[in-house]
Amino acid sequence: MTIPTKQDLIGTYGQIAPFIHRTPVFTSSLIDHLAAAQLYFKCENLQKMGAFKMRGAANAVASLTTDKKKQGVITHSSGNFAQAVALAAKEAKIKAYIVMPNTAPKVKVAAVKSYGGIVTISGPTLQDREATTNALIKQTGASFLHPSNQIEVILGQGTAAMELLEDHPDLSAVITPVGGGGLLAGTALACHYFGKQCKSYAGEPANVDDAYRSLKSGKIETNKTANTVADGLKTQLGDVNFPIIKNLVSDIFLVSESEIIAAMRLIWERMKLVVEPSSAVALAAVLKNKTYFKDKKVGIIISGGNVDLSNLPFN
Amino acid sequence: MTIPTKQDLIGTYGQIAPFIHRTPVFTSSLIDHLAAAQLYFKCENLQKMGAFKMRGAANAVASLTTDKKKQGVITHSSGNFAQAVALAAKEAKIKAYIVMPNTAPKVKVAAVKSYGGIVTISGPTLQDREATTNALIKQTGASFLHPSNQIEVILGQGTAAMELLEDHPDLSAVITPVGGGGLLAGTALACHYFGKQCKSYAGEPANVDDAYRSLKSGKIETNKTANTVADGLKTQLGDVNFPIIKNLVSDIFLVSESEIIAAMRLIWERMKLVVEPSSAVALAAVLKNKTYFKDKKVGIIISGGNVDLSNLPFN
Repeated sequence: MTIPTKQDLIGTYGQIAPFIHRTPVFTSSLIDHLAAAQLYFKCENLQKMGAFKMRGAANAVASLTTDKKKQGVITHSSGNFAQAVALAAKEAKIKAYIVMPNTAPKVKVAAVKSYGGIVTISGPTLQDREATTNALIKQTGASFLHPSNQIEVILGQGTAAMELLEDHPDLSAVITPVGGGGLLAGTALACHYFGKQCKSYAGEPANVDDAYRSLKSGKIETNKTANTVADGLKTQLGDVNFPIIKNLVSDIFLVSESEIIAAMRLIWERMKLVVEPSSAVALAAVLKNKTYFKDKKVGIIISGGNVDLSNLPFN
Repeated sequence: MTIPTKQDLIGTYGQIAPFIHRTPVFTSSLIDHLAAAQLYFKCENLQKMGAFKMRGAANAVASLTTDKKKQGVITHSSGNFAQAVALAAKEAKIKAYIVMPNTAPKVKVAAVKSYGGIVTISGPTLQDREATTNALIKQTGASFLHPSNQIEVILGQGTAAMELLEDHPDLSAVITPVGGGGLLAGTALACHYFGKQCKSYAGEPANVDDAYRSLKSGKIETNKTANTVADGLKTQLGDVNFPIIKNLVSDIFLVSESEIIAAMRLIWERMKLVVEPSSAVALAAVLKNKTYFKDKKVGIIISGGNVDLSNLPFN
């Protein structure tokens, strides 16, 4: 595949700017002290619908032809991407078909519906979801949007790091969590084209270390289990984002569950920000590798803030 | 007493500006929709040490003579004001003696110490605290700082609304929580001098409705119980702040415990901000009085964000 160009990212940003928030960048002198580095937190938890996924969904929708837009878009997801596609479609005044498993929490289904998404409930397995999705595509002609393995989505996610580097051009590193790989691939592109020798990294839960192993082995690895508090990071890399990651990402750092929860607590307590466990994985990686990041200016993508307040991991 | 002047507030702001954060103002289209009004949230949870109390403490410290500064400052508190005095004193490079009851949570004592406060543990009652404080004053000559009933503290707290009205000059109301009355009195002064016919209001837990009853009766009332989730609002008005409140505050609205928790949850879930239960009382009052605030531009002072994450009121 061809790696997207700088112009692709610039075009993406122009295309989605009217549909997204330019999120603020927060700092914390206390956390800087703990990390022995200068950290710049890009607050995608304050993005529309509460996560960076809005950027990729908005770009995927905006990239469709007028004819395809008329037929709507479709995805299967029970997470942030479902809400992002529903809201992006609503803003573009087109239909969004969202296939959700019958195991999805009611609150997630309600959130998608509140953004105008047309929800179809499927069976619980991936096969069930795909069958329901394919049947709906045949029926409606809707365009399938993938949460992480589609070039328009990757480019959209990259705009968070573009904004961050515009605000802080001298960052020497940007670090994101990695799950499906869309945010990491987009961020790597943004660092490559808009940074001044700015390297890109990811943090990953040790319990689902497929991206770490993929970067080492050079091919897409999978997980046998999905046992992590960082529920947004259970997915695996794809054939569209992996070549970008393999070419441009400097390293992936593994962190334990307790390190993720401690970093999450630090952000809540000291920065007063509600962030998802997945968001804390990047900070956890920086705090675990203090020597590596010592005295550097490091950007951290806070990926989202959609948590169930009735079920928090704090003791 | 004489009501402080506009010039007093301007002088205060110039005096404390180097020691405080100018906090951001957040908005939420979803909460605006629920309230049928335009709400501007002044985020004092993002203030230094996590609460507006930093403003009053910084001003009280800065207002001391050089000689008095050498002898240090003292307060008794187990809440945000203890941390605020410790940090304000640290920034001014003077000593802070903090008397805390032996019932104070260890985490609060540790927070005060982390800001350099010299902690003395007293018995649990108000009498115990006052006795220990008075003994320390005799010994050290330190200046006593009151969390809410001291003019320098009131003026300091008023700078939050000053900043808010500078950012949004056309607010027709600003609403705060009311406990000891320092924030409310300072906010009332700021609205009076810097607003364009901007009225000031407070929200108060119905379970500790002393300020509401004081405004109606014209004299300072007390509470028989202190049973509210809004633990910062259990205190009562004082002879310095009450004349300001009586003269300038338009009304105080009572809210139930469940309304406070629902408003708090809304801020956490939708704005992704960690705020104290006390902070949610003002929003709860606006949501409860929709007809009153309909279509108005209303400023809401988010008073602080210091919560115990291990003990949250969400079900």
